[in-house]
Amino acid sequence: MKVELFAIEGLPDVVPGDDIAALVALGIRRLGERLEPGDIVVITQKIVSKAEGRLIPLAEVEPSAFAVQWGTASGTDPRVVELVLRESRRIVRMDRGVIIVETHQGLVCANAGVDLSNVAGGEVATLLPVDPDASARRIRAGLHASAGVEVPVIISDTFGRPWREGLVNVAIGVAGLSPLRSYVGSRDPQGFPLQATIEALADEVGAAAGLVSSKLNRTPAVLVRGILYEAGDGSARDLMRAPERDMFR
Amino acid sequence: MKVELFAIEGLPDVVPGDDIAALVALGIRRLGERLEPGDIVVITQKIVSKAEGRLIPLAEVEPSAFAVQWGTASGTDPRVVELVLRESRRIVRMDRGVIIVETHQGLVCANAGVDLSNVAGGEVATLLPVDPDASARRIRAGLHASAGVEVPVIISDTFGRPWREGLVNVAIGVAGLSPLRSYVGSRDPQGFPLQATIEALADEVGAAAGLVSSKLNRTPAVLVRGILYEAGDGSARDLMRAPERDMFR
Repeated sequence: MKVELFAIEGLPDVVPGDDIAALVALGIRRLGERLEPGDIVVITQKIVSKAEGRLIPLAEVEPSAFAVQWGTASGTDPRVVELVLRESRRIVRMDRGVIIVETHQGLVCANAGVDLSNVAGGEVATLLPVDPDASARRIRAGLHASAGVEVPVIISDTFGRPWREGLVNVAIGVAGLSPLRSYVGSRDPQGFPLQATIEALADEVGAAAGLVSSKLNRTPAVLVRGILYEAGDGSARDLMRAPERDMFR
Repeated sequence: MKVELFAIEGLPDVVPGDDIAALVALGIRRLGERLEPGDIVVITQKIVSKAEGRLIPLAEVEPSAFAVQWGTASGTDPRVVELVLRESRRIVRMDRGVIIVETHQGLVCANAGVDLSNVAGGEVATLLPVDPDASARRIRAGLHASAGVEVPVIISDTFGRPWREGLVNVAIGVAGLSPLRSYVGSRDPQGFPLQATIEALADEVGAAAGLVSSKLNRTPAVLVRGILYEAGDGSARDLMRAPERDMFR
């Protein structure tokens, strides 16, 4: 078994209204590759957000009193804090200058995914797509239309983790595959039942793609070939642990 | 840029005293590949533990009163609970039948990595390697001796995470590369300074390898080709967040 990851490089700067599927399809052709059944396309959140116009000039943000207070105390721009609060349905931790939230999408992450880098002018915030699964479904349909093949699409973002240093890429939007791969009920090569094991397949695909989608180059998408997955409807919500099953919420 | 992951399949059952480097080198030759400079070899923890004799027959374990109490209350074999406690320097959470600990190695994970599956007899527990970095260094030296090339070695294990469902493979032992890739001080394609970003490269490599090292086949090692990394001494300890920097400890 062999897996290949192709960096889809050299895409132009994405602006609101751009057709991400068309740009990715073009990038794949320029690689000299073509989409094949079984391939997976991973797209970084930033270009999806830009194409969907999820950009807010900081100058337009009026911070609340709470955002001013926390921002001033923590050395963060209060307008960024304001956006983080607006993107959140609940604060998980607010400590040492860091805000860990539960976003409206159900993701638990730092700063609700609000990001300031890589946007012309530097004073524009990028927000997460409103519904990353829907974004993935739209891009999947667009790739189907332009390349004639239906492949799963994963939208990835870079998250920190408790207990471990460094960021890893995870799946925040999914279309066309089951993001979890279950070994429950399976047996190992000796015939012993495997302990209940459910693998976060889509997160591992996102992490693998993160290895080639360097922040230093324009590589906002990755073609992944050779992974065994279960096709189907599936949603990034399958990767979100329910609060009642979570000991760190 | 292209990354390739080759499953090193068909290794024999590993028993204490086995030379993992020799088995992996043989597996790579049988793939029709040879180790090249820049390659990374990922090896799953289970075979490393077996080769190092980190196996305990449960019949030999005398559980403490506390282990009997928790095991009985949570439906876990008290002898397994006893081993989890022995492998731990601190309990992070003990709730809903789950024990999250800080192991003697400094890893935060469920059940201290104690595992019952895949061992002949079924009543034998596998423990994590005593020093996974040292295990990685030994295998790296062995591969150098047998294949003539010095490549980084990562020992991976399958961990759960707070907030997200499913397990992912992470790096618990590292030799020959810096496990973190830093973008601090870098600039994006528009020339803006990147926000402080440190990527957990070794964890992403472990996760990528997890995509091909299925538990259902004998694929305990993966050859990874094409990743940009910084060679050097490096330790899985670089991936462990210091308790004072951790909001979920």
